[in-house]
Amino acid sequence: MKQSNLFSKTRKEAPNDEASASARFLIRGGFVEKIGAGIYAMLPLGLRVLNKIEKIIAQEMDAIGGQRILMTALMPKKNWETTGRWSSLDVLFKIEREKGESYALGATHEEEVVPLVQKFVYSYKDLPFSVYQIQTKFRDELRAKSGLLRLREFSMKDLYSFHADEAGLDVFYEKAKDAYFKVYERTGIKDKTFLTFASGGSFAKFSHEFQMITDAGEDIIHICKKCGLAINKEIKEEYPVCPECQCAEFEEKKAIEVGNIFKLKTKYSDPFNLQFTDKDGQKKLVIMGTYGIGLTRLMGAVAEAHHDESGIIWPREIAPFDVHLIALNSTDEAVYGKVKNAADKLYFDLQKAGLEVLYDDRAEKSAGEKFKDSDLLGIPSRIVVSEKTLQKDSVEQKNRNSKDQKLILLSEADPRNL
Amino acid sequence: MKQSNLFSKTRKEAPNDEASASARFLIRGGFVEKIGAGIYAMLPLGLRVLNKIEKIIAQEMDAIGGQRILMTALMPKKNWETTGRWSSLDVLFKIEREKGESYALGATHEEEVVPLVQKFVYSYKDLPFSVYQIQTKFRDELRAKSGLLRLREFSMKDLYSFHADEAGLDVFYEKAKDAYFKVYERTGIKDKTFLTFASGGSFAKFSHEFQMITDAGEDIIHICKKCGLAINKEIKEEYPVCPECQCAEFEEKKAIEVGNIFKLKTKYSDPFNLQFTDKDGQKKLVIMGTYGIGLTRLMGAVAEAHHDESGIIWPREIAPFDVHLIALNSTDEAVYGKVKNAADKLYFDLQKAGLEVLYDDRAEKSAGEKFKDSDLLGIPSRIVVSEKTLQKDSVEQKNRNSKDQKLILLSEADPRNL
Repeated sequence: MKQSNLFSKTRKEAPNDEASASARFLIRGGFVEKIGAGIYAMLPLGLRVLNKIEKIIAQEMDAIGGQRILMTALMPKKNWETTGRWSSLDVLFKIEREKGESYALGATHEEEVVPLVQKFVYSYKDLPFSVYQIQTKFRDELRAKSGLLRLREFSMKDLYSFHADEAGLDVFYEKAKDAYFKVYERTGIKDKTFLTFASGGSFAKFSHEFQMITDAGEDIIHICKKCGLAINKEIKEEYPVCPECQCAEFEEKKAIEVGNIFKLKTKYSDPFNLQFTDKDGQKKLVIMGTYGIGLTRLMGAVAEAHHDESGIIWPREIAPFDVHLIALNSTDEAVYGKVKNAADKLYFDLQKAGLEVLYDDRAEKSAGEKFKDSDLLGIPSRIVVSEKTLQKDSVEQKNRNSKDQKLILLSEADPRNL
Repeated sequence: MKQSNLFSKTRKEAPNDEASASARFLIRGGFVEKIGAGIYAMLPLGLRVLNKIEKIIAQEMDAIGGQRILMTALMPKKNWETTGRWSSLDVLFKIEREKGESYALGATHEEEVVPLVQKFVYSYKDLPFSVYQIQTKFRDELRAKSGLLRLREFSMKDLYSFHADEAGLDVFYEKAKDAYFKVYERTGIKDKTFLTFASGGSFAKFSHEFQMITDAGEDIIHICKKCGLAINKEIKEEYPVCPECQCAEFEEKKAIEVGNIFKLKTKYSDPFNLQFTDKDGQKKLVIMGTYGIGLTRLMGAVAEAHHDESGIIWPREIAPFDVHLIALNSTDEAVYGKVKNAADKLYFDLQKAGLEVLYDDRAEKSAGEKFKDSDLLGIPSRIVVSEKTLQKDSVEQKNRNSKDQKLILLSEADPRNL
């Protein structure tokens, strides 16, 4: 995409009310725009990142057999009354209608997925299976703040698994754990993300969270110095030693939750009476698990984990573009014509080779402004075409995560090396 | 995908309250499931169709320069008060909160897109441009009915264009018209879809609708017998002759709106004071257009346009799968083993060749049940492997939209011919 066409623009200053580095850079770069407290629109660059995160998560959920569906945001009140959460879940947005049904806005989807699969589950032969969706969730968070880290409206992947017995749930649960770490690896935060024992909140007695350590986080975790298992501070008292390796030494860190998985067992199959007929002819309740990742928060967490004082440094697989191609202006119009021609050709060639290119073709911006923007946007590879580089029949290449830059002959500018 | 793994199942009967053929087949096939009046969840097969429609629309909007963004469903009340539509738009779902802001649920997004782009538009140099999103919309339709044709919650593509003058809007408007017909061509309904003069509703005095003729439609259009331009019945009195070719002969048809485009001009830039500085240094209001397609409705309309008495006949580009591969059981277990082996291999080979395959590997279903399901699901190409076909070292191939079937030698079963 040509940067001269991009309607969003970078800004020198971030709003004063944005506390986290990720929020400041995401807004300054024109990735997202605040609409209200905890409510952000995705601009073209931000949506590209979010869509890449979505693709990774969908691939990893498909790989463990998840069947993708799309449930609804308008959820009839009666299902929430069945579980008791119409009154107990305090973050629920409610639409009370004078005529006809009232609705909850989907904050989580146990209340929809259980009656939905109930229409298709009769026998043990129909089990196990899992369904997932990537959908907008709504939660009336009082403490909406810190950019994308705590939102009232956000994109979330929620997967639900259905089993004939707990042994089946246990097997799938371990698979899901592995799939989650693959997601964190591909989004560039695996090194900072720890499997964490936590309380089950409104869902279950215990759960596992995936916590990414960052000073912008609102949680505190205790990481076992021996095996790396973490325990959320809220239940740390119950675990004087690590339940995995019995080590008693922990490191305390601030962290943000970037995923969670729960063994629901019969917590939601019971109120809806989601049963199946087992091999022995007995009616039994279906055993369930639930597995969530907030995509929007993950995007904020990645920006929090990968930035320096100049801007974001996107991990390659979720960067909005692969290459930031920059043509520098010249006071000599004929020279600038040559620079533009060389850059135009490279823009075409790089895209033809399958690379996604943001092309800074803006004539009115100085080299300094362009480099600042490039650092702010954080695209992994930067290529500069200028009077100086063309004098050596070359372009200058630099990776965002390195200070090294090198000249590459135009004739050897193989996209695979850029 | 193996059909034995698919959690959704076909049904012999559709619910009594579903009037349209499309709704009955979509529910019986397990494409969608009703959650409430005008509220449907997408099951795996339905979501595949919807995602393909989304891909087509995104490609055609990209092709006319649309920049994809994602706005929010929670829209602050104050913006709706600015335009007066907080009280005048009767389909608006409202979330009234005791503390803090109240919200409208996005029924359309002029109230968000105008203040959003305002942050980036200063000069005529920033114009023209267009942004679009594909997002869930919410409208409190009293007459929610007919499956996917009139919904309270649905997926919609809305594009907004911004121009320095009306001439610029006119040029883009014609491009958008062409892009819309490309969408209808690729989704298989172009022959039945007519550009239609209509009133502007709450948006503008006049607009253009794209109306697909179908007995399930709730609109009535008058199609010019000479040039094919249509006029919505609601404004037909104003046009005794065709405004395009002056012909006075019309054919009256029932139809459903599958898209609409409006020249908003300054209707929404005015209340938000969205201005730019023109070449002459004058501050002027930005000129706008708006362009909508409901994806969920389009999916229902396609199913309405393409079905017979046995089920849906999906157009190839939006079919949930390219090929429905069916292995028929046999009373002889050894023979069935051979059938399964041949079908398994074909399943692997077809997918390797890049085709999307639904593989009916269900051992417990009869040939009759499998063929009925296949007709109901409407996948374009059906391939049957059975004892009978293997006796001739062949598979049987049949297209859903034809009665002809042919034997193809397994050794010649080139995926490109299937």
